[in-house]
Amino acid sequence: MDQVRALVFDTFGTVVDWRGSVARRMARVARAKGIEVDADAFARAWRAGYRPGLERVTSGERPFTPIDVIHRERLDEILEQFGISGHFGEAERAKMTLWWHQLDPWPDSVPGLRRLGTRYLIGPLSNGSTVLLASMAKRAGIPWDFIMSSSIVRAYKRHPDAYLNCCRALELEPREVMMCAAHNDDLEAAQSHGLRTAYINRPYEYGADQAKDFEATGSFDIVTDEIGGIADALGC
Amino acid sequence: MDQVRALVFDTFGTVVDWRGSVARRMARVARAKGIEVDADAFARAWRAGYRPGLERVTSGERPFTPIDVIHRERLDEILEQFGISGHFGEAERAKMTLWWHQLDPWPDSVPGLRRLGTRYLIGPLSNGSTVLLASMAKRAGIPWDFIMSSSIVRAYKRHPDAYLNCCRALELEPREVMMCAAHNDDLEAAQSHGLRTAYINRPYEYGADQAKDFEATGSFDIVTDEIGGIADALGC
Repeated sequence: MDQVRALVFDTFGTVVDWRGSVARRMARVARAKGIEVDADAFARAWRAGYRPGLERVTSGERPFTPIDVIHRERLDEILEQFGISGHFGEAERAKMTLWWHQLDPWPDSVPGLRRLGTRYLIGPLSNGSTVLLASMAKRAGIPWDFIMSSSIVRAYKRHPDAYLNCCRALELEPREVMMCAAHNDDLEAAQSHGLRTAYINRPYEYGADQAKDFEATGSFDIVTDEIGGIADALGC
Repeated sequence: MDQVRALVFDTFGTVVDWRGSVARRMARVARAKGIEVDADAFARAWRAGYRPGLERVTSGERPFTPIDVIHRERLDEILEQFGISGHFGEAERAKMTLWWHQLDPWPDSVPGLRRLGTRYLIGPLSNGSTVLLASMAKRAGIPWDFIMSSSIVRAYKRHPDAYLNCCRALELEPREVMMCAAHNDDLEAAQSHGLRTAYINRPYEYGADQAKDFEATGSFDIVTDEIGGIADALGC
């Protein structure tokens, strides 16, 4: 692990709490409109369209499509499913799509990343766009040194290009890059291309919908419950 | 200019003072070794190999070559030219190449960028590599939101791909991006692809070697003497 120069992080669920962040905003909007919505279920339903949306791109069924478009299409679907579509006009839907640019970090994320940043270059390697990830970091004070977005690597994880184009854009060998994530399959994909790996346990990410990633199921270089644990393991 | 979402900056000469930074380090090294070198001339000579090195890539004469390699090749040349090659071993040359990762900002750069960052996403669009630019920013406290490096856009300015791939990686239209630079030809290239432009006057960048860029010679959206002037013009 002495060779590691840069740490890249999955973002949604690993660094930020998408479920709590979206649910809090949805609850606020519902209250203001006087409508009844299970805000937590709404956040989970929105997220449930994410992987299928990305997989249509990854499989080649659909050309590269920005994440904002995928989020917006899913929003239209779930507003319908929750029976509240009539309450939301075009401008409000556009604004709600940007909630994904404004997610709140888990409490350990910013302190842990600050420690890692004293020794390593750190950045997200996320399916989010550059503008989404940079806006999120600016708002939340996440101290990234660089952004590796889907719009830069031109692929969505777990496609090999996501990991390989990231290393290329860093001009680093895979063994010099450590992928940090709360999702076993993300780390397994990274590991298969030669990256180092750190698993951060986030067993509450999906709440009622969590079906996996309650623990590390692969053999990763670091396994921890919070981002500061990576700093501990690396001696930062 | 209301459409502008992101500002991208040339780095060498525009944000950081490469000549002063390299000359100061070279003077220190020469003193420690007890050798006589015109450190300012050394810095200028090193830089003089930069554009020809990039142009061999841009013209297609040579495949994409990392900036560290171009800097290192030029270092070997000038150590010979200055007649001091025998004083510098392999390890020291490798370390000196990293001086370009550790350049100091002009005094107005960090305060001006902080102001712009309150309203816009800001990043370098530079011929430097991701690691070079991120390391430089971390050391100097430059508050970039993202990094657009030659290793990300896979081209060197003034090749069209540098500007167009940057906009694509930001998922923004060229008119939503403002290129900020101290070099007329960089801005003219950006402008020809539809980007907005801001010229920052740095008439002392090259010192004794400065032959152009004493003033804006094109018609740019903003012309100023320091980065804070862009913030003034944009009302930040």
